[in-house]
Amino acid sequence: MKKTIGILGGMGPLATADLFIKIVTQTKAAGDNDHIRVYIDSNSAIPDRTAAILTGGPDPVEEMTSALRHLESCGADCIIMPCNTAHYFLPRLQEKTEIPILNMLEITARSCASRYPGKRTAVLATRGTLATGLYSAALEKAGVDYLIPDEGEQDILMHLIYEVVKASRPLEPEADTWASLLDGLRKKGADYFILGCTELPIVASTLSAEGPFVDPTAELAKAAIRFCEYETTGE
Amino acid sequence: MKKTIGILGGMGPLATADLFIKIVTQTKAAGDNDHIRVYIDSNSAIPDRTAAILTGGPDPVEEMTSALRHLESCGADCIIMPCNTAHYFLPRLQEKTEIPILNMLEITARSCASRYPGKRTAVLATRGTLATGLYSAALEKAGVDYLIPDEGEQDILMHLIYEVVKASRPLEPEADTWASLLDGLRKKGADYFILGCTELPIVASTLSAEGPFVDPTAELAKAAIRFCEYETTGE
Repeated sequence: MKKTIGILGGMGPLATADLFIKIVTQTKAAGDNDHIRVYIDSNSAIPDRTAAILTGGPDPVEEMTSALRHLESCGADCIIMPCNTAHYFLPRLQEKTEIPILNMLEITARSCASRYPGKRTAVLATRGTLATGLYSAALEKAGVDYLIPDEGEQDILMHLIYEVVKASRPLEPEADTWASLLDGLRKKGADYFILGCTELPIVASTLSAEGPFVDPTAELAKAAIRFCEYETTGE
Repeated sequence: MKKTIGILGGMGPLATADLFIKIVTQTKAAGDNDHIRVYIDSNSAIPDRTAAILTGGPDPVEEMTSALRHLESCGADCIIMPCNTAHYFLPRLQEKTEIPILNMLEITARSCASRYPGKRTAVLATRGTLATGLYSAALEKAGVDYLIPDEGEQDILMHLIYEVVKASRPLEPEADTWASLLDGLRKKGADYFILGCTELPIVASTLSAEGPFVDPTAELAKAAIRFCEYETTGE
């Protein structure tokens, strides 16, 4: 029996589409029938994860569970979540289901260790993700050296994620802001960058600043393809 | 209660992602929670629709119904299918469910009539779609003048759809083939083109040949957004 993937999505919807496309383009396939069956619940009702963690916003677990139940009823063999911050709630979700939820942050940390041994990464993410310390924990466990953006840099990241990508605004006017953010981090010793919010691969692929970048969405897609025992294209 | 969309997908997976993205980008939204909840079953096991219609290939209705049942169990308020050829099977599917299946071909024909009154369109589609006569019927009903590609032109379309997009091959080497196909149809009297196979909007947006084009995927996305009583961006 071929294995299938369930995407617990909507956090946000474009990041959900981005993960789905990365699964499709990274699967070795010569036609429609060579692809993995993918179930998606893009649940736009899931409350903001950063607000829940930092400012006492509504708990997102109930709406995440609603999506989880839909993916279970479809018969998904693994669950993946294209939202870094949402991983703070992964242990509570995993308690509710027998289906393995693949951990994007741990997968990314292992990939950093093998792709850039001895180098230092900068973690680009929302305040919510950074406040959880989940990336720090995953990177330390994998033996990866890292630095965390300072307050001013976090302001810029929050602007790009919330006021531009999630607000469906054009990215092009932000090209200089993005490039200077990366240059500043490079001067502080970053050798490469983790695009640790699922809106950021959209920024990095639209604007042409130099990386190198590690894209957790792409790493998660590859891990899910391998979980389903399909071959990746090696892209 | 907010309405939701179910995408009966996998025909092919990239066309499924394309439809999902068009729903997201065409919905007027200032944040994740302003979007429509979308359920997707990208069922890669659905047999090829063109083969079923033209050469006695396996009937796709059983696998399409499997996806339909998943979308029903999620609670979708309407169903949409990002595959023109699949619409041949729409009446059989509609008999199996109370949920309305929005008809992409009829939506497209009505849009042609209102956007290009008195002009002639060329229907770019698979042999399967053209053989069903579904576009001819929808366009005649909407009072739209049209022409159908000849055998040689259909060969080129089948090559682009099956040997390039569905086979995950690069499109750039096909730029001249695509431009000459459109020029030939323009010489025969076409004023604009219906991208009547869901792989073709991917061709038209990647290669830069002149249209104008009517994209049934975008028209279907807009119709589904309006069905759910959300506002479109007007893009």
